[in-house]
Amino acid sequence: MTHSETFPVTENTRLRRLPRRGSYDHAAVHAILDEALVAHVGFIGSAGQPVVLPTAFARRGDVVILHGSVVGRLMKTLAEGVPLCLTVTLLDGLVLAKSAFHHSMNYRSVTVFGHARLVTGANEKEAALRALTERLTPGRWDALRPVTAKEVAATTVLELPLLEAVAKTRSGPPVDDAEDLDWPVFAGVVPLSMVAGDAIPA
Amino acid sequence: MTHSETFPVTENTRLRRLPRRGSYDHAAVHAILDEALVAHVGFIGSAGQPVVLPTAFARRGDVVILHGSVVGRLMKTLAEGVPLCLTVTLLDGLVLAKSAFHHSMNYRSVTVFGHARLVTGANEKEAALRALTERLTPGRWDALRPVTAKEVAATTVLELPLLEAVAKTRSGPPVDDAEDLDWPVFAGVVPLSMVAGDAIPA
Repeated sequence: MTHSETFPVTENTRLRRLPRRGSYDHAAVHAILDEALVAHVGFIGSAGQPVVLPTAFARRGDVVILHGSVVGRLMKTLAEGVPLCLTVTLLDGLVLAKSAFHHSMNYRSVTVFGHARLVTGANEKEAALRALTERLTPGRWDALRPVTAKEVAATTVLELPLLEAVAKTRSGPPVDDAEDLDWPVFAGVVPLSMVAGDAIPA
Repeated sequence: MTHSETFPVTENTRLRRLPRRGSYDHAAVHAILDEALVAHVGFIGSAGQPVVLPTAFARRGDVVILHGSVVGRLMKTLAEGVPLCLTVTLLDGLVLAKSAFHHSMNYRSVTVFGHARLVTGANEKEAALRALTERLTPGRWDALRPVTAKEVAATTVLELPLLEAVAKTRSGPPVDDAEDLDWPVFAGVVPLSMVAGDAIPA
């Protein structure tokens, strides 16, 4: 896959407002997915109720891997191949303008539309679980107590092919109205980032 | 509202798996909503496609306030009173166990089910916008260039009443199998938190 490849612009992914914030480049989508730690997955539950649940995930090539207990609602529903939407958001800063109207947030988000498919086969499932572990803690998988067949069987693993996706980004300073620039209040960006503290041994 | 008030357990909010992680207390739900900076809102778009989009929000009493451009898809759709699901997730740590199977994340999340209603009336809209600004930067509203009638008119403000909500929390160390406790790999928690850097003037 090269950086020049792009996802198609579809009715789902076309940005109606502020299209300049959007990108359909595979590389842009992948980079955001690879930095985010949590995805929010939306599906239609019973009685037509939309449901949004947070979950860990990992991208591997052209698919997003999801996993969970075989008895959980999220995995059971998604395994049926229902339409889903997976969104990840990296919050980069609070954008403080001279007027409330121009306040904003700096962020990078990706929204993926599609259907998940069940990963079957113990080897394929184990490879996916390995990817989930390794993306967060590279090199750790081989040091862990090996997974058992029973554990693999108790875990549902799903793949969401990346076929329809869009990245959205807002960055940089506030964009104030020209006549407000001298208003006597701070304007600028408060950077936000997720940081890891010192590990706490169990 | 006292801490003893609880949300009803419904078909949407009943936790089937690990019910001990759930709380229906108003206070628990409010605390998580008040700390989170971004919500992920799910709704059913055209052709039955679930859509999940990130958005800023603020809780004010028993409602969650959402806002956006009157021409944006999210506001237009939600203003119709369609069923929605709003989820916020605070990621608190990576939980590293002796086995891949017992890896987890520490988090606090809230999921709200309901319908938004349009806030009309310039004064009511302005009060909601004030709450959105003040929750992130207390005291800032009065220092800003005042909002104009045109800006208020260009902004859709919605209220989502908190009627059906559940908080989920995972905290603490990994829970390893007894026979794995001596396995020679680190086990513990890597704390994660969102931090603000020094403000960058525009």
